[in-house]
Amino acid sequence: MPIFAAIQMQPFLLDKEKNLQKISHLMKEAAKKGTELAVFPECCLTGYDLSFEEASQIAISIPGPETERIERDCREFNLFVVIGSIEAGADGKFYNSAILIGPSGLIGSYRKAHLPFLGVDRFLAAGNAFPVLFDTPIGKIGLMICYDVFFPEAARLHGLAGTQVIALPTAWGAGDPQFPEFVRARAAENDIYVIGTNWAGTERGETYLGKSIIANPDGQTLAQGSDTQEEILYAEIHPANTHRGRRIFIPGKFEMDIWNERRPELYQAIAVDPKKQIQ
Amino acid sequence: MPIFAAIQMQPFLLDKEKNLQKISHLMKEAAKKGTELAVFPECCLTGYDLSFEEASQIAISIPGPETERIERDCREFNLFVVIGSIEAGADGKFYNSAILIGPSGLIGSYRKAHLPFLGVDRFLAAGNAFPVLFDTPIGKIGLMICYDVFFPEAARLHGLAGTQVIALPTAWGAGDPQFPEFVRARAAENDIYVIGTNWAGTERGETYLGKSIIANPDGQTLAQGSDTQEEILYAEIHPANTHRGRRIFIPGKFEMDIWNERRPELYQAIAVDPKKQIQ
Repeated sequence: MPIFAAIQMQPFLLDKEKNLQKISHLMKEAAKKGTELAVFPECCLTGYDLSFEEASQIAISIPGPETERIERDCREFNLFVVIGSIEAGADGKFYNSAILIGPSGLIGSYRKAHLPFLGVDRFLAAGNAFPVLFDTPIGKIGLMICYDVFFPEAARLHGLAGTQVIALPTAWGAGDPQFPEFVRARAAENDIYVIGTNWAGTERGETYLGKSIIANPDGQTLAQGSDTQEEILYAEIHPANTHRGRRIFIPGKFEMDIWNERRPELYQAIAVDPKKQIQ
Repeated sequence: MPIFAAIQMQPFLLDKEKNLQKISHLMKEAAKKGTELAVFPECCLTGYDLSFEEASQIAISIPGPETERIERDCREFNLFVVIGSIEAGADGKFYNSAILIGPSGLIGSYRKAHLPFLGVDRFLAAGNAFPVLFDTPIGKIGLMICYDVFFPEAARLHGLAGTQVIALPTAWGAGDPQFPEFVRARAAENDIYVIGTNWAGTERGETYLGKSIIANPDGQTLAQGSDTQEEILYAEIHPANTHRGRRIFIPGKFEMDIWNERRPELYQAIAVDPKKQIQ
């Protein structure tokens, strides 16, 4: 019975050491329940509403001493994790990244491709690779971050590329309650799991929504967090039970195949520069 | 105060005359409240779970005597309507169509582009034009039908093309409760209104979901129907208050522009034949 977890936590602002300790403690707790993959929130090593100077000082290298510490815990607890952090790229740019680490070490990372003009994202560089997914012993894990889920194209590209579980670290503000519905829609429309892990608390006067959510390929909520409490959500996940192809509800009468019933030949305008579309 | 309406009704199976009378009665009722646009459900002239023979016998021409009767009511009640019907095309094919008619007559129609293997859709031809929208005195009205809303590409193409209000006739079965969430997601992710009008009742043993919904560009529910009752939902709609461009929540700190923050250069695979993507 494979258990995946969303670890709804509120990071300490600009205190990497305390966040690393907290993450280690939460990994241990999740591992006790037999968790295979634990998804932590966006920027959970660093905080989110940072100035450029703060971001550049706290950013981590991937790999680096912080990922090595997490790797040790992954080995010890036999756990895969997705962790959000600001990344100092070898190219001198700074990114909002999600890192996938397993019992055998660092697997890879993803740089947020859709940046809102908000918090630290105002000052960061956008990633230019999409989708980023990894074929692991526990399933095909795709990485997205927060605002990416607003854009249906993002999860769709994961669906087309074969991702079975999207791990979605977020720092989603309480002002926009749409987050859990986006997660359920992306899961259903792509016939995959989505694990959206959010903050729950406040930082520099901004309140975050909580409501972390694990949704199954039918768009149903398997687990849902509260508005305000830090907590671990658990759900049974069967990565192979995605991309179900032709689904037969009543034979010859009610059947559905969302991948073959798409009309990609009608979708050309989606990949065109939006400035040519909307004035 | 522009009022748009979703007219949740259960059509009579294979009885066009009774459906035309019922629609006329409901148009009159909606008009009394000052409604500008009334959206009726999918196949509400004909019924949905039909054999090919039944469909071909009951299909209407557009224009034809049925649309002329509705045009008369639109003139009399000063009302725009969207009506779903099976269409007999001049090309000898049969389509699942949505028809937009206003006080000045027939405006145009749309042929469902995404067909599930379900009910009469099993036997119909798919439309090959998308998106279909009309610039009318009451706003830019885009037409989609039922299963189209499952595919985020469809509403996205409307968003890119400037549709302000998607009129979405449906005949959505009770087995899949995802319908209202898809409607809210499509509205929010494209910054437009969506009016999803469903059946409420049973036909040939199949129960329909009801839960018609009018969602605003923030993905909020303005009006929602019951599971089982026929009823008219009303909501205040401001078509110009869509495509809001750069939205400033906290100046210099929390701003969003979903059209410019898309990454169309990363979306090429969406317009590729899915059989080349998924085995």
